[in-house]
Amino acid sequence: MARVSGNTDGKRDERLYALGQAVAARRRELGLSQEALADASGVNRSHMGEVERGKRNVTTLNVLRLAEALNTTAAELFKKADL
Amino acid sequence: MARVSGNTDGKRDERLYALGQAVAARRRELGLSQEALADASGVNRSHMGEVERGKRNVTTLNVLRLAEALNTTAAELFKKADL
Repeated sequence: MARVSGNTDGKRDERLYALGQAVAARRRELGLSQEALADASGVNRSHMGEVERGKRNVTTLNVLRLAEALNTTAAELFKKADL
Repeated sequence: MARVSGNTDGKRDERLYALGQAVAARRRELGLSQEALADASGVNRSHMGEVERGKRNVTTLNVLRLAEALNTTAAELFKKADL
């Protein structure tokens, strides 16, 4: 019944990758490490790398948490990812 | 380990609700029923109502599928939801 947001069985989805790269670009702009962003957003540290590499089908609430920690909006992240 | 995108235990999250209302507004603009949008997007029919009511932490891939079926973008849906 419950759908799992989890990883994508090692496969990279190009759209998730584009979103992950938008997150990574903004993170680097702010001079944050993946670990620092994970801690600031509450996203599991072990998931951050997968999110940025497009290997995790991240939930809306986690996208919003990442956007907030990056001092931006989900709309802006999706726009930068051309999604 | 895996996080569940599933429902939010009956609680409404105001941000998920705003996104759901942006989906619903666009759906109505196009004259689609929830069932028609579910079928067009591939989102589970039984989940569509929960998505629109902010009771489901929808995954990024499902937001993208909904946006595509609504002939819009995820960026636009999040922008309309002020997220």
